[in-house]
Amino acid sequence: MPANAPGSRSRMTVEQRRDQLLRIGARLLADRPYDEVWVDQVAELAQVSRGLLYHYFPTKRDFATAIIQTEADRMPAMTEPDPALPVAEQLVAGLDAYFRYAEDNEAGYRALHGGAALADEKVRAILAANHTRQEDWIVDALHPGGGAPVALRVAVRGWMAFIVAVCLDWLRDRALTRDEARDLCARALFQLTGPPG
Amino acid sequence: MPANAPGSRSRMTVEQRRDQLLRIGARLLADRPYDEVWVDQVAELAQVSRGLLYHYFPTKRDFATAIIQTEADRMPAMTEPDPALPVAEQLVAGLDAYFRYAEDNEAGYRALHGGAALADEKVRAILAANHTRQEDWIVDALHPGGGAPVALRVAVRGWMAFIVAVCLDWLRDRALTRDEARDLCARALFQLTGPPG
Repeated sequence: MPANAPGSRSRMTVEQRRDQLLRIGARLLADRPYDEVWVDQVAELAQVSRGLLYHYFPTKRDFATAIIQTEADRMPAMTEPDPALPVAEQLVAGLDAYFRYAEDNEAGYRALHGGAALADEKVRAILAANHTRQEDWIVDALHPGGGAPVALRVAVRGWMAFIVAVCLDWLRDRALTRDEARDLCARALFQLTGPPG
Repeated sequence: MPANAPGSRSRMTVEQRRDQLLRIGARLLADRPYDEVWVDQVAELAQVSRGLLYHYFPTKRDFATAIIQTEADRMPAMTEPDPALPVAEQLVAGLDAYFRYAEDNEAGYRALHGGAALADEKVRAILAANHTRQEDWIVDALHPGGGAPVALRVAVRGWMAFIVAVCLDWLRDRALTRDEARDLCARALFQLTGPPG
């Protein structure tokens, strides 16, 4: 009986099981098509029935949305400013945390940014909200007190696409070191927007 | 009878009909989920049966792939260099053509870059091939004769994500003029990669 096998469902709390399914889902969502087979593979890897999976996440879409929401929630906590630092250092520290997060959560990061779930409107809405939060933080850091020129805002949004592309590129090829990739992104921001403060 | 209505299928060649379906498909693919309803809506707007649509494109996936391939083929012809110009002018002229293309083919551009079809692996492969072609052209223009440093290549790939984000942003908000958006992108490239030549 699978229920008595090592690592079976009886040994996990509801919270642990949910977390396990989300992690396996993220790993698969990073690389595979977003279809029914994907759900079957998650169930297989977690050694649970498809029925149990659907007990936690009633539809494929609910599951994908929960994965993306979890990854999106995890990220901004690490890119929040330390107001004790000068602005340029806050931004470099935020970028450093961003690249470390991507390295430590490669599957989640790729599921979030390069994955097949991008087709889903709900997923895109979560990502858009996440981007807006990061954009607001960066624009405030570069132009405190509000009233930033629209060109600055457009440049920051473009730069956020730049760092995602550089980060995905780095995770795939490792042609640069993590620090080189981070410094390329920091330099790009200051070149695009002028020196902060 | 729909077959006798104005604009009905009897008045179009196979080529014209195919082109019409691709254009309507692109318009819808720019904004709507990539599902069966989308196919129904294309058939309705083209005033053809779902069966006729599937005669041209056997599956939803074939249809989406044909749309993306058509749009991808249309773009690089307009961003090819004029070797008579200095490199910086070639790049600005290429960018200008790029933004004009996006303005004249807004639906196609959005279907290609921001659309729901991104979930499809075939679609992503077409886009990747298109990006590689543009990347090679830009890297060659900036560093003729081959052997470009890997950091230049990474920066150019990041910059391509930057221009897509700026272009989608501009199409949506029109907060900048087309020329301002183009100049922001040109400046960004030269800042990121150093002056060409």
